[in-house]
Amino acid sequence: MQIKNLNKYFDHTLLKVTSTKKDYITLCKEALEHSFYSVCVPPIFVPFAKNQLQGSNVKICSVVGFPSGLNNTETKINETKVLLKQGADEIDMVANLSFIKSKSWGKLYSEISFIRNKCSKKVLKVIVESSLLTKDEILNCCLVIKNAKADFIKTSTGFNGPGAKLQDVQFMQQVLYGSDVKIKASGGIRSLASATQFINLGAQRIGSSSGVQIINQLKTGITNETSSRSNY
Amino acid sequence: MQIKNLNKYFDHTLLKVTSTKKDYITLCKEALEHSFYSVCVPPIFVPFAKNQLQGSNVKICSVVGFPSGLNNTETKINETKVLLKQGADEIDMVANLSFIKSKSWGKLYSEISFIRNKCSKKVLKVIVESSLLTKDEILNCCLVIKNAKADFIKTSTGFNGPGAKLQDVQFMQQVLYGSDVKIKASGGIRSLASATQFINLGAQRIGSSSGVQIINQLKTGITNETSSRSNY
Repeated sequence: MQIKNLNKYFDHTLLKVTSTKKDYITLCKEALEHSFYSVCVPPIFVPFAKNQLQGSNVKICSVVGFPSGLNNTETKINETKVLLKQGADEIDMVANLSFIKSKSWGKLYSEISFIRNKCSKKVLKVIVESSLLTKDEILNCCLVIKNAKADFIKTSTGFNGPGAKLQDVQFMQQVLYGSDVKIKASGGIRSLASATQFINLGAQRIGSSSGVQIINQLKTGITNETSSRSNY
Repeated sequence: MQIKNLNKYFDHTLLKVTSTKKDYITLCKEALEHSFYSVCVPPIFVPFAKNQLQGSNVKICSVVGFPSGLNNTETKINETKVLLKQGADEIDMVANLSFIKSKSWGKLYSEISFIRNKCSKKVLKVIVESSLLTKDEILNCCLVIKNAKADFIKTSTGFNGPGAKLQDVQFMQQVLYGSDVKIKASGGIRSLASATQFINLGAQRIGSSSGVQIINQLKTGITNETSSRSNY
């Protein structure tokens, strides 16, 4: 099934550690040209992206505790505060995987709730690195994220493990059906075919560094895998 | 050349995102058994490691802005402050690679100086991800780190790029010869042969998750590559 307004599903993403302003000028230009939903940039580039995109509808998304997530809650709260002050519209926080692997669901809930509170009405996504989790762990993450009132569960950082898997998104969708929590699929999504599959399974946002190639595939009718600037 | 007190060169390291308390119990036990210089753990595990190692000489090392380094300076300062409050003895901060790749040496100096100041007399290491840098960039990093009075330049996070390279450590040693800045080689060091080479070239600390295997190689006389718990 062809997706309407496919561009609006995309957080146009560049999180490579060696990227420079030049790369973010390109990222923002592409986001404007294709009217992507947002750009997703590292904390240090939020003010720059904000400036590049002023007057447009393209949102600014940035990351907290990225990509390890094993920071103290106080540090994650500080990072969230700084990003919101600088104008970020959406926060993609990395969940503490040690909490998940230790079944410390109370700690996971508490940390997400603190960040939820700090985000106020801004959008909060929680990255769970689902390709490193069991089905039970994904189930519990979905329930905790729902209870903590985050806006999205996000599959992957793109830096740990293989990234988004169709069966994980399908399972999240089953667990979260009827709730307010949406799904962002990210990590390794580099073709129109792949993006379409994730959206058809219920993903309401796609994180990818290949948005331009994917939109071009839609225009040209070529839907197979393409090269990417990163592993994202 | 065989190294005296090889164990004392090791920051015994575990920074895998899915590690749990059980893994850190093992890490701390191994550090005690082999009298490693320190354990290097993610922020969230500092209080736990501190507790496990109390009364011993094994230091606690943790990481700031790990492994991307693209956080705002304010967030890195906050993370440093929290870690020191929790009892960390040594701080391994990730340099902002976008500053390095943009030749923003003033910004790099300023950020390191802020963290240096926050660390007071605690040991500060600056991770530059040297395998992703040109020789000129490594040269400038050495000079900035020397001027900002950090204690160590550290080659790699183990999460971006191939890790420590002999020629990079040799070059750092040439540039920093006669200064107070020491070298920590890390990322992919998994054999006695490799650790010995780095130390003979001037590294005064080794970051590795393979310290136990390396010390066992010393005892048994087998010096080739061994398996590792992570890419560190």
